Amino acid sequence: MPTTIGRKVWAIAEGYIPGKSTGQGRAMESHETACLLNASDQDAQVEITLFFKDREPVGPYRVTVPARRTQHVRFNDLSDPVPVPRDTDYASVISSNVPIVVQHTRLDSRQAELALISTMAFPID
Amino acid sequence: MPTTIGRKVWAIAEGYIPGKSTGQGRAMESHETACLLNASDQDAQVEITLFFKDREPVGPYRVTVPARRTQHVRFNDLSDPVPVPRDTDYASVISSNVPIVVQHTRLDSRQAELALISTMAFPID
Amino acid sequence: MPTTIGRKVWAIAEGYIPGKSTGQGRAMESHETACLLNASDQDAQVEITLFFKDREPVGPYRVTVPARRTQHVRFNDLSDPVPVPRDTDYASVISSNVPIVVQHTRLDSRQAELALISTMAFPID
Amino acid sequence: MPTTIGRKVWAIAEGYIPGKSTGQGRAMESHETACLLNASDQDAQVEITLFFKDREPVGPYRVTVPARRTQHVRFNDLSDPVPVPRDTDYASVISSNVPIVVQHTRLDSRQAELALISTMAFPID
Repeated sequence: MPTTIGRKVWAIAEGYIPGKSTGQGRAMESHETACLLNASDQDAQVEITLFFKDREPVGPYRVTVPARRTQHVRFNDLSDPVPVPRDTDYASVISSNVPIVVQHTRLDSRQAELALISTMAFPID
Repeated sequence: MPTTIGRKVWAIAEGYIPGKSTGQGRAMESHETACLLNASDQDAQVEITLFFKDREPVGPYRVTVPARRTQHVRFNDLSDPVPVPRDTDYASVISSNVPIVVQHTRLDSRQAELALISTMAFPID
Repeated sequence: MPTTIGRKVWAIAEGYIPGKSTGQGRAMESHETACLLNASDQDAQVEITLFFKDREPVGPYRVTVPARRTQHVRFNDLSDPVPVPRDTDYASVISSNVPIVVQHTRLDSRQAELALISTMAFPID
Repeated sequence: MPTTIGRKVWAIAEGYIPGKSTGQGRAMESHETACLLNASDQDAQVEITLFFKDREPVGPYRVTVPARRTQHVRFNDLSDPVPVPRDTDYASVISSNVPIVVQHTRLDSRQAELALISTMAFPID
Protein backbone atom coordinates (compact mmCIF):
# COMPACT_ATOMS: atom_id res chain seq x y z
CA MET A 1 0.00 0.00 0.00
CA PRO A 2 1.41 3.45 -0.88
CA THR A 3 2.18 5.71 2.06
CA THR A 4 0.06 8.56 0.70
CA ILE A 5 -3.63 7.89 0.16
CA GLY A 6 -5.70 10.86 -0.93
CA ARG A 7 -5.43 14.62 -1.17
CA LYS A 8 -5.34 17.56 1.23
CA VAL A 9 -8.17 19.66 -0.23
CA TRP A 10 -11.52 18.51 -1.59
CA ALA A 11 -14.67 20.23 -2.80
CA ILE A 12 -18.35 19.22 -2.89
CA ALA A 13 -20.52 21.53 -4.99
CA GLU A 14 -23.83 19.90 -4.05
CA GLY A 15 -25.20 20.38 -0.56
CA TYR A 16 -28.77 20.31 0.73
CA ILE A 17 -30.16 18.91 3.96
CA PRO A 18 -33.88 18.25 3.54
CA GLY A 19 -35.80 19.81 6.42
CA LYS A 20 -38.22 16.93 6.67
CA SER A 21 -37.84 13.25 7.50
CA THR A 22 -40.04 10.22 7.77
CA GLY A 23 -39.15 7.00 9.48
CA GLN A 24 -37.69 6.46 12.90
CA GLY A 25 -34.38 7.14 14.50
CA ARG A 26 -31.10 8.70 13.50
CA ALA A 27 -30.49 6.20 10.67
CA MET A 28 -33.59 7.31 8.76
CA GLU A 29 -33.29 11.04 9.39
CA SER A 30 -32.64 13.07 6.21
CA HIS A 31 -28.95 13.87 6.33
CA GLU A 32 -25.78 14.64 4.40
CA THR A 33 -22.46 13.07 5.20
CA ALA A 34 -18.84 13.77 4.34
CA CYS A 35 -17.14 10.38 4.64
CA LEU A 36 -13.50 11.02 5.55
CA LEU A 37 -10.86 8.30 5.28
CA ASN A 38 -7.51 8.92 6.92
CA ALA A 39 -5.37 5.93 5.94
CA SER A 40 -2.20 7.64 7.14
CA ASP A 41 -0.31 7.10 10.39
CA GLN A 42 -0.89 10.68 11.55
CA ASP A 43 -4.08 12.25 12.92
CA ALA A 44 -5.84 14.46 10.38
CA GLN A 45 -6.91 17.95 11.42
CA VAL A 46 -9.77 18.65 9.05
CA GLU A 47 -11.43 21.99 8.35
CA ILE A 48 -14.77 22.29 6.58
CA THR A 49 -15.85 25.62 5.05
CA LEU A 50 -19.41 26.08 3.81
CA PHE A 51 -20.44 28.26 0.87
CA PHE A 52 -23.92 29.66 0.31
CA LYS A 53 -25.92 31.44 -2.35
CA ASP A 54 -26.41 34.74 -0.60
CA ARG A 55 -23.99 35.11 2.30
CA GLU A 56 -20.27 34.90 3.05
CA PRO A 57 -18.65 31.48 3.66
CA VAL A 58 -19.03 30.02 7.15
CA GLY A 59 -16.38 28.11 9.04
CA PRO A 60 -14.08 26.49 9.53
CA TYR A 61 -15.81 23.62 11.24
CA ARG A 62 -13.08 21.47 12.80
CA VAL A 63 -12.97 17.67 12.86
CA THR A 64 -10.16 15.33 13.86
CA VAL A 65 -9.88 11.98 12.12
CA PRO A 66 -7.39 9.81 14.00
CA ALA A 67 -4.66 7.93 12.16
CA ARG A 68 -5.91 4.81 10.32
CA ARG A 69 -9.56 5.66 10.91
CA THR A 70 -12.62 6.74 8.95
CA GLN A 71 -15.15 9.24 10.17
CA HIS A 72 -18.51 9.76 8.51
CA VAL A 73 -19.29 13.36 9.47
CA ARG A 74 -22.92 14.40 9.29
CA PHE A 75 -23.33 18.00 8.18
CA ASN A 76 -26.50 17.89 10.33
CA ASP A 77 -24.31 17.56 13.41
CA LEU A 78 -21.99 20.49 12.71
CA SER A 79 -22.74 23.24 15.20
CA ASP A 80 -19.61 25.35 15.77
CA PRO A 81 -19.55 28.17 14.65
CA VAL A 82 -23.25 27.73 13.66
CA PRO A 83 -25.59 24.88 12.66
CA VAL A 84 -26.03 24.15 8.95
CA PRO A 85 -29.37 25.54 7.78
CA ARG A 86 -31.95 23.06 6.42
CA ASP A 87 -33.68 23.33 3.05
CA THR A 88 -30.83 25.58 1.90
CA ASP A 89 -28.40 25.14 -1.01
CA TYR A 90 -24.79 25.04 0.07
CA ALA A 91 -21.39 23.71 -1.01
CA SER A 92 -18.26 22.79 0.92
CA VAL A 93 -14.50 22.82 0.78
CA ILE A 94 -12.71 20.34 3.03
CA SER A 95 -9.04 20.69 3.83
CA SER A 96 -6.72 18.56 5.94
CA ASN A 97 -3.13 18.71 7.11
CA VAL A 98 -2.55 15.14 5.86
CA PRO A 99 -3.96 13.43 2.74
CA ILE A 100 -7.47 12.03 3.15
CA VAL A 101 -10.20 10.69 0.85
CA VAL A 102 -13.62 12.39 0.86
CA GLN A 103 -16.93 11.00 -0.38
CA HIS A 104 -20.29 12.77 -0.18
CA THR A 105 -23.62 11.05 0.56
CA ARG A 106 -27.17 12.20 1.15
CA LEU A 107 -30.08 10.24 2.55
CA ASP A 108 -33.38 11.89 1.71
CA SER A 109 -36.33 10.56 3.70
CA ARG A 110 -38.81 13.35 3.02
CA GLN A 111 -41.02 10.69 1.49
CA ALA A 112 -41.97 7.31 2.91
CA GLU A 113 -39.32 5.53 0.81
CA LEU A 114 -35.82 6.95 1.11
CA ALA A 115 -33.61 8.09 -1.76
CA LEU A 116 -29.80 8.10 -1.72
CA ILE A 117 -26.99 9.82 -3.60
CA SER A 118 -23.24 9.42 -3.30
CA THR A 119 -20.23 10.65 -5.23
CA MET A 120 -16.54 11.06 -4.63
CA ALA A 121 -15.70 14.68 -3.77
CA PHE A 122 -13.50 16.62 -6.21
CA PRO A 123 -9.77 16.52 -5.35
CA ILE A 124 -8.14 19.95 -5.44
CA ASP A 125 -4.70 19.64 -4.02
CA MET B 1 -6.85 26.75 1.44
CA PRO B 2 -5.31 26.90 -2.06
CA THR B 3 -6.16 29.97 -4.09
CA THR B 4 -7.42 27.93 -7.05
CA ILE B 5 -10.32 25.57 -6.45
CA GLY B 6 -11.66 23.80 -9.49
CA ARG B 7 -11.42 23.96 -13.25
CA LYS B 8 -12.64 26.26 -16.01
CA VAL B 9 -14.41 23.72 -18.23
CA TRP B 10 -16.60 20.79 -17.21
CA ALA B 11 -18.78 18.27 -19.02
CA ILE B 12 -21.87 16.30 -18.04
CA ALA B 13 -22.78 13.54 -20.49
CA GLU B 14 -26.07 12.58 -18.82
CA GLY B 15 -29.02 14.93 -19.07
CA TYR B 16 -32.73 14.25 -18.93
CA ILE B 17 -35.52 16.25 -17.31
CA PRO B 18 -38.51 13.98 -16.71
CA GLY B 19 -41.67 15.60 -18.06
CA LYS B 20 -43.80 14.41 -15.18
CA SER B 21 -43.77 15.09 -11.45
CA THR B 22 -45.71 14.02 -8.43
CA GLY B 23 -45.69 15.74 -5.08
CA GLN B 24 -46.14 19.39 -4.32
CA GLY B 25 -44.11 22.49 -4.86
CA ARG B 26 -40.80 23.37 -6.46
CA ALA B 27 -38.79 21.07 -4.17
CA MET B 28 -40.53 17.94 -5.42
CA GLU B 29 -40.70 18.86 -9.10
CA SER B 30 -38.62 16.58 -11.33
CA HIS B 31 -35.50 18.58 -12.11
CA GLU B 32 -31.83 18.56 -13.01
CA THR B 33 -29.30 20.81 -11.35
CA ALA B 34 -25.76 21.94 -12.08
CA CYS B 35 -24.33 22.84 -8.67
CA LEU B 36 -21.67 25.48 -9.21
CA LEU B 37 -19.15 26.39 -6.51
CA ASN B 38 -17.09 29.53 -7.00
CA ALA B 39 -14.66 29.58 -4.09
CA SER B 40 -12.56 32.30 -5.69
CA ASP B 41 -12.54 36.02 -4.91
CA GLN B 42 -13.74 36.98 -8.39
CA ASP B 43 -17.24 36.64 -9.87
CA ALA B 44 -17.55 33.71 -12.27
CA GLN B 45 -19.12 34.30 -15.67
CA VAL B 46 -20.43 30.86 -16.56
CA GLU B 47 -21.62 29.64 -19.95
CA ILE B 48 -23.63 26.45 -20.41
CA THR B 49 -23.90 24.81 -23.84
CA LEU B 50 -26.37 21.97 -24.41
CA PHE B 51 -25.86 19.08 -26.80
CA PHE B 52 -28.63 16.92 -28.25
CA LYS B 53 -29.07 13.73 -30.23
CA ASP B 54 -30.47 15.21 -33.41
CA ARG B 55 -29.84 18.95 -33.54
CA GLU B 56 -27.00 21.44 -33.27
CA PRO B 57 -25.80 22.56 -29.80
CA VAL B 58 -27.83 25.30 -28.11
CA GLY B 59 -26.44 28.16 -26.05
CA PRO B 60 -24.65 29.61 -24.37
CA TYR B 61 -26.91 30.04 -21.40
CA ARG B 62 -25.27 32.62 -19.13
CA VAL B 63 -25.08 32.48 -15.33
CA THR B 64 -23.08 34.62 -12.90
CA VAL B 65 -21.85 33.01 -9.71
CA PRO B 66 -20.57 35.75 -7.38
CA ALA B 67 -17.23 35.42 -5.61
CA ARG B 68 -17.29 33.00 -2.65
CA ARG B 69 -20.77 31.73 -3.48
CA THR B 70 -22.47 28.57 -4.71
CA GLN B 71 -25.36 28.52 -7.13
CA HIS B 72 -27.45 25.43 -7.80
CA VAL B 73 -28.71 26.11 -11.32
CA ARG B 74 -31.79 24.20 -12.41
CA PHE B 75 -31.69 23.27 -16.07
CA ASN B 76 -35.51 23.51 -15.83
CA ASP B 77 -35.15 27.26 -15.25
CA LEU B 78 -32.88 28.01 -18.22
CA SER B 79 -34.88 29.95 -20.79
CA ASP B 80 -32.52 32.15 -22.83
CA PRO B 81 -31.98 31.38 -25.71
CA VAL B 82 -34.68 28.64 -25.38
CA PRO B 83 -36.12 26.43 -22.61
CA VAL B 84 -34.61 22.96 -22.15
CA PRO B 85 -36.96 20.36 -23.65
CA ARG B 86 -38.43 17.75 -21.29
CA ASP B 87 -38.25 13.98 -21.81
CA THR B 88 -35.27 14.55 -24.10
CA ASP B 89 -31.70 13.23 -23.87
CA TYR B 90 -29.12 15.98 -23.67
CA ALA B 91 -25.59 16.67 -22.39
CA SER B 92 -23.83 19.85 -21.33
CA VAL B 93 -20.49 21.64 -21.34
CA ILE B 94 -20.01 24.29 -18.70
CA SER B 95 -17.24 26.85 -18.98
CA SER B 96 -16.23 29.70 -16.69
CA ASN B 97 -13.71 32.51 -16.73
CA VAL B 98 -12.47 31.51 -13.26
CA PRO B 99 -12.07 28.01 -11.79
CA ILE B 100 -15.28 26.50 -10.37
CA VAL B 101 -16.45 23.06 -9.22
CA VAL B 102 -19.47 21.46 -10.92
CA GLN B 103 -21.66 18.65 -9.65
CA HIS B 104 -24.72 17.24 -11.42
CA THR B 105 -27.92 16.10 -9.67
CA ARG B 106 -31.33 14.90 -10.80
CA LEU B 107 -34.48 14.53 -8.75
CA ASP B 108 -36.96 12.25 -10.48
CA SER B 109 -40.46 12.40 -9.04
CA ARG B 110 -42.37 10.75 -11.86
CA GLN B 111 -43.43 8.15 -9.34
CA ALA B 112 -44.86 8.68 -5.86
CA GLU B 113 -41.46 8.08 -4.23
CA LEU B 114 -38.63 10.18 -5.61
CA ALA B 115 -35.30 8.90 -6.93
CA LEU B 116 -32.04 10.85 -6.94
CA ILE B 117 -28.71 10.74 -8.77
CA SER B 118 -25.61 12.87 -8.33
CA THR B 119 -22.08 12.79 -9.67
CA MET B 120 -19.20 15.17 -10.01
CA ALA B 121 -19.02 16.57 -13.55
CA PHE B 122 -15.94 15.69 -15.65
CA PRO B 123 -13.15 18.29 -15.47
CA ILE B 124 -11.80 19.25 -18.89
CA ASP B 125 -9.52 22.19 -18.45
CA MET C 1 -14.31 26.28 -25.19
CA PRO C 2 -11.22 24.04 -25.58
CA THR C 3 -11.04 22.04 -28.79
CA THR C 4 -10.59 18.73 -26.97
CA ILE C 5 -13.34 17.65 -24.60
CA GLY C 6 -12.93 14.24 -23.04
CA ARG C 7 -10.85 11.13 -23.46
CA LYS C 8 -10.59 8.29 -25.96
CA VAL C 9 -10.94 5.32 -23.58
CA TRP C 10 -13.26 4.92 -20.60
CA ALA C 11 -14.15 2.09 -18.24
CA ILE C 12 -17.26 1.26 -16.20
CA ALA C 13 -16.73 -1.49 -13.63
CA GLU C 14 -20.38 -1.75 -12.57
CA GLY C 15 -22.88 -3.29 -14.96
CA TYR C 16 -26.15 -5.08 -14.30
CA ILE C 17 -29.43 -4.95 -16.19
CA PRO C 18 -32.25 -6.07 -13.91
CA GLY C 19 -34.35 -8.72 -15.63
CA LYS C 20 -37.60 -7.37 -14.26
CA SER C 21 -39.45 -4.11 -14.66
CA THR C 22 -42.62 -2.56 -13.40
CA GLY C 23 -44.34 0.47 -14.86
CA GLN C 24 -45.22 1.14 -18.45
CA GLY C 25 -43.28 1.88 -21.57
CA ARG C 26 -39.66 2.22 -22.54
CA ALA C 27 -38.99 5.06 -20.08
CA MET C 28 -39.77 2.91 -17.05
CA GLU C 29 -38.10 -0.30 -18.24
CA SER C 30 -35.11 -1.32 -16.10
CA HIS C 31 -32.10 -0.31 -18.14
CA GLU C 32 -28.46 0.77 -18.16
CA THR C 33 -27.17 3.60 -20.28
CA ALA C 34 -23.78 4.82 -21.44
CA CYS C 35 -24.28 8.54 -22.08
CA LEU C 36 -21.78 9.56 -24.75
CA LEU C 37 -20.98 13.20 -25.46
CA ASN C 38 -19.05 14.03 -28.61
CA ALA C 39 -18.41 17.78 -28.44
CA SER C 40 -15.88 17.61 -31.26
CA ASP C 41 -16.36 18.53 -34.90
CA GLN C 42 -15.68 15.00 -36.11
CA ASP C 43 -17.95 11.93 -35.91
CA ALA C 44 -16.94 9.53 -33.16
CA GLN C 45 -16.61 5.84 -33.99
CA VAL C 46 -17.19 4.20 -30.62
CA GLU C 47 -16.48 0.59 -29.67
CA ILE C 48 -17.90 -1.01 -26.52
CA THR C 49 -16.37 -4.21 -25.12
CA LEU C 50 -18.14 -6.12 -22.35
CA PHE C 51 -16.40 -8.12 -19.62
CA PHE C 52 -18.01 -10.90 -17.60
CA LYS C 53 -17.32 -13.04 -14.57
CA ASP C 54 -16.98 -16.39 -16.28
CA ARG C 55 -16.47 -15.96 -20.01
CA GLU C 56 -14.23 -14.13 -22.46
CA PRO C 57 -14.97 -10.47 -23.32
CA VAL C 58 -17.66 -9.84 -25.94
CA GLY C 59 -17.58 -7.18 -28.63
CA PRO C 60 -16.89 -4.73 -29.95
CA TYR C 61 -20.35 -3.27 -30.18
CA ARG C 62 -20.14 -0.33 -32.59
CA VAL C 63 -21.88 3.03 -32.19
CA THR C 64 -21.43 6.26 -34.12
CA VAL C 65 -21.92 9.55 -32.29
CA PRO C 66 -22.05 12.35 -34.87
CA ALA C 67 -20.04 15.53 -34.38
CA ARG C 68 -21.51 17.91 -31.76
CA ARG C 69 -24.07 15.37 -30.58
CA THR C 70 -24.82 13.25 -27.53
CA GLN C 71 -26.11 9.72 -27.66
CA HIS C 72 -27.49 7.89 -24.64
CA VAL C 73 -26.84 4.26 -25.56
CA ARG C 74 -28.90 1.66 -23.75
CA PHE C 75 -26.96 -1.52 -23.08
CA ASN C 76 -30.38 -3.20 -23.34
CA ASP C 77 -30.48 -2.29 -27.02
CA LEU C 78 -27.05 -3.66 -27.98
CA SER C 79 -27.54 -6.75 -30.11
CA ASP C 80 -24.55 -7.20 -32.42
CA PRO C 81 -22.62 -9.47 -31.87
CA VAL C 82 -25.04 -10.70 -29.13
CA PRO C 83 -27.61 -9.17 -26.73
CA VAL C 84 -26.42 -8.24 -23.23
CA PRO C 85 -27.62 -10.88 -20.76
CA ARG C 86 -30.02 -9.74 -17.98
CA ASP C 87 -29.47 -10.34 -14.26
CA THR C 88 -25.76 -10.80 -14.98
CA ASP C 89 -22.76 -8.89 -13.63
CA TYR C 90 -20.69 -7.25 -16.34
CA ALA C 91 -18.31 -4.33 -16.91
CA SER C 92 -17.41 -2.33 -20.00
CA VAL C 93 -14.57 -0.56 -21.76
CA ILE C 94 -15.57 2.14 -24.23
CA SER C 95 -13.10 3.45 -26.79
CA SER C 96 -13.47 6.13 -29.45
CA ASN C 97 -11.35 7.53 -32.27
CA VAL C 98 -11.99 11.07 -30.99
CA PRO C 99 -12.27 12.32 -27.40
CA ILE C 100 -15.70 11.84 -25.82
CA VAL C 101 -17.19 12.03 -22.31
CA VAL C 102 -18.89 8.94 -20.85
CA GLN C 103 -21.35 8.76 -17.97
CA HIS C 104 -23.07 5.61 -16.70
CA THR C 105 -26.67 5.45 -15.47
CA ARG C 106 -29.02 2.68 -14.36
CA LEU C 107 -32.76 2.84 -13.85
CA ASP C 108 -33.97 -0.05 -11.72
CA SER C 109 -37.73 -0.54 -11.78
CA ARG C 110 -37.91 -4.05 -10.35
CA GLN C 111 -40.01 -2.58 -7.58
CA ALA C 112 -43.00 -0.25 -7.86
CA GLU C 113 -40.86 2.82 -7.14
CA LEU C 114 -37.78 3.18 -9.32
CA ALA C 115 -34.21 3.63 -8.11
CA LEU C 116 -31.45 5.40 -10.03
CA ILE C 117 -27.65 5.49 -10.06
CA SER C 118 -25.24 7.56 -12.12
CA THR C 119 -21.52 8.15 -12.12
CA MET C 120 -18.93 9.45 -14.50
CA ALA C 121 -17.05 6.58 -16.15
CA PHE C 122 -13.30 6.26 -15.40
CA PRO C 123 -11.07 7.97 -17.97
CA ILE C 124 -8.21 5.77 -19.17
CA ASP C 125 -6.55 7.47 -22.05
CA MET D 1 -7.49 -0.45 -26.61
CA PRO D 2 -4.53 0.59 -24.42
CA THR D 3 -2.70 -2.22 -22.64
CA THR D 4 -3.12 -0.64 -19.21
CA ILE D 5 -6.65 -0.04 -17.98
CA GLY D 6 -6.97 1.30 -14.47
CA ARG D 7 -4.86 1.77 -11.38
CA LYS D 8 -3.29 -0.43 -8.72
CA VAL D 9 -4.70 1.26 -5.59
CA TRP D 10 -8.17 2.65 -5.00
CA ALA D 11 -10.05 4.06 -2.02
CA ILE D 12 -13.73 4.20 -1.07
CA ALA D 13 -14.48 6.52 1.86
CA GLU D 14 -18.15 5.57 2.19
CA GLY D 15 -19.07 2.16 3.54
CA TYR D 16 -22.17 0.98 5.36
CA ILE D 17 -24.07 -2.30 5.07
CA PRO D 18 -27.61 -1.80 6.35
CA GLY D 19 -28.49 -4.52 8.86
CA LYS D 20 -32.03 -4.86 7.59
CA SER D 21 -33.52 -5.95 4.29
CA THR D 22 -36.95 -6.34 2.81
CA GLY D 23 -37.80 -8.27 -0.31
CA GLN D 24 -36.79 -11.77 -1.24
CA GLY D 25 -33.57 -13.42 -2.21
CA ARG D 26 -29.96 -12.43 -2.58
CA ALA D 27 -30.70 -9.81 -5.24
CA MET D 28 -32.83 -7.72 -2.87
CA GLU D 29 -30.69 -8.12 0.23
CA SER D 30 -29.14 -4.84 1.42
CA HIS D 31 -25.53 -5.02 0.28
CA GLU D 32 -22.42 -3.14 -0.76
CA THR D 33 -20.33 -4.14 -3.74
CA ALA D 34 -16.86 -3.36 -5.01
CA CYS D 35 -17.08 -3.92 -8.76
CA LEU D 36 -13.62 -4.91 -9.97
CA LEU D 37 -12.70 -4.89 -13.65
CA ASN D 38 -9.48 -6.58 -14.69
CA ALA D 39 -9.11 -5.87 -18.40
CA SER D 40 -5.50 -7.05 -18.43
CA ASP D 41 -4.13 -10.38 -19.61
CA GLN D 42 -2.85 -11.30 -16.16
CA ASP D 43 -4.81 -12.47 -13.11
CA ALA D 44 -5.23 -9.73 -10.49
CA GLN D 45 -4.41 -10.53 -6.88
CA VAL D 46 -6.55 -8.02 -5.00
CA GLU D 47 -6.30 -7.06 -1.34
CA ILE D 48 -9.06 -5.16 0.48
CA THR D 49 -8.33 -3.39 3.77
CA LEU D 50 -11.19 -2.02 5.87
CA PHE D 51 -10.99 1.08 8.05
CA PHE D 52 -13.31 1.84 10.96
CA LYS D 53 -14.15 4.67 13.32
CA ASP D 54 -12.90 3.16 16.52
CA ARG D 55 -10.61 0.20 15.85
CA GLU D 56 -7.50 -0.66 13.86
CA PRO D 57 -7.81 -1.54 10.15
CA VAL D 58 -8.85 -5.11 9.32
CA GLY D 59 -7.53 -7.22 6.46
CA PRO D 60 -6.33 -7.86 3.96
CA TYR D 61 -9.27 -9.70 2.45
CA ARG D 62 -7.97 -11.48 -0.64
CA VAL D 63 -9.78 -11.79 -3.98
CA THR D 64 -8.52 -13.04 -7.33
CA VAL D 65 -9.97 -11.50 -10.48
CA PRO D 66 -8.90 -13.60 -13.47
CA ALA D 67 -7.49 -11.97 -16.60
CA ARG D 68 -10.15 -10.28 -18.80
CA ARG D 69 -12.87 -10.71 -16.20
CA THR D 70 -14.98 -8.60 -13.86
CA GLN D 71 -15.92 -9.58 -10.35
CA HIS D 72 -18.56 -7.78 -8.32
CA VAL D 73 -17.42 -8.49 -4.76
CA ARG D 74 -20.03 -8.12 -2.05
CA PHE D 75 -18.60 -6.78 1.18
CA ASN D 76 -21.38 -8.82 2.82
CA ASP D 77 -19.64 -11.99 1.65
CA LEU D 78 -16.16 -11.18 2.97
CA SER D 79 -15.43 -13.47 5.90
CA ASP D 80 -11.66 -14.00 6.19
CA PRO D 81 -10.21 -12.68 8.51
CA VAL D 82 -13.63 -11.62 9.91
CA PRO D 83 -17.10 -10.74 8.55
CA VAL D 84 -17.85 -7.07 7.88
CA PRO D 85 -20.05 -5.70 10.67
CA ARG D 86 -23.53 -4.44 9.72
CA ASP D 87 -24.90 -1.00 10.59
CA THR D 88 -21.32 0.21 11.01
CA ASP D 89 -19.46 3.01 9.21
CA TYR D 90 -16.37 1.81 7.39
CA ALA D 91 -14.11 2.70 4.46
CA SER D 92 -11.85 0.62 2.25
CA VAL D 93 -8.57 0.64 0.37
CA ILE D 94 -8.28 -1.82 -2.50
CA SER D 95 -4.91 -2.71 -3.97
CA SER D 96 -3.97 -5.02 -6.82
CA ASN D 97 -0.77 -6.30 -8.42
CA VAL D 98 -2.07 -5.30 -11.87
CA PRO D 99 -4.16 -2.25 -12.86
CA ILE D 100 -7.89 -2.64 -12.28
CA VAL D 101 -10.95 -0.35 -12.23
CA VAL D 102 -13.05 -0.13 -9.06
CA GLN D 103 -16.62 1.11 -8.68
CA HIS D 104 -18.64 1.14 -5.46
CA THR D 105 -22.37 0.39 -5.23
CA ARG D 106 -24.87 -0.01 -2.42
CA LEU D 107 -28.36 -1.45 -2.55
CA ASP D 108 -30.38 -0.39 0.48
CA SER D 109 -33.60 -2.37 0.95
CA ARG D 110 -34.34 -1.44 4.53
CA GLN D 111 -37.60 -0.03 3.26
CA ALA D 112 -40.11 -1.63 0.91
CA GLU D 113 -38.72 0.27 -2.08
CA LEU D 114 -34.99 -0.03 -2.60
CA ALA D 115 -32.52 2.83 -2.94
CA LEU D 116 -29.22 2.67 -4.83
CA ILE D 117 -25.93 4.57 -4.90
CA SER D 118 -22.88 4.12 -7.09
CA THR D 119 -19.67 6.02 -7.67
CA MET D 120 -16.27 5.35 -9.13
CA ALA D 121 -13.73 4.69 -6.37
CA PHE D 122 -10.86 7.19 -5.98
CA PRO D 123 -7.68 6.21 -7.86
CA ILE D 124 -4.54 6.46 -5.71
CA ASP D 125 -1.71 4.93 -7.60
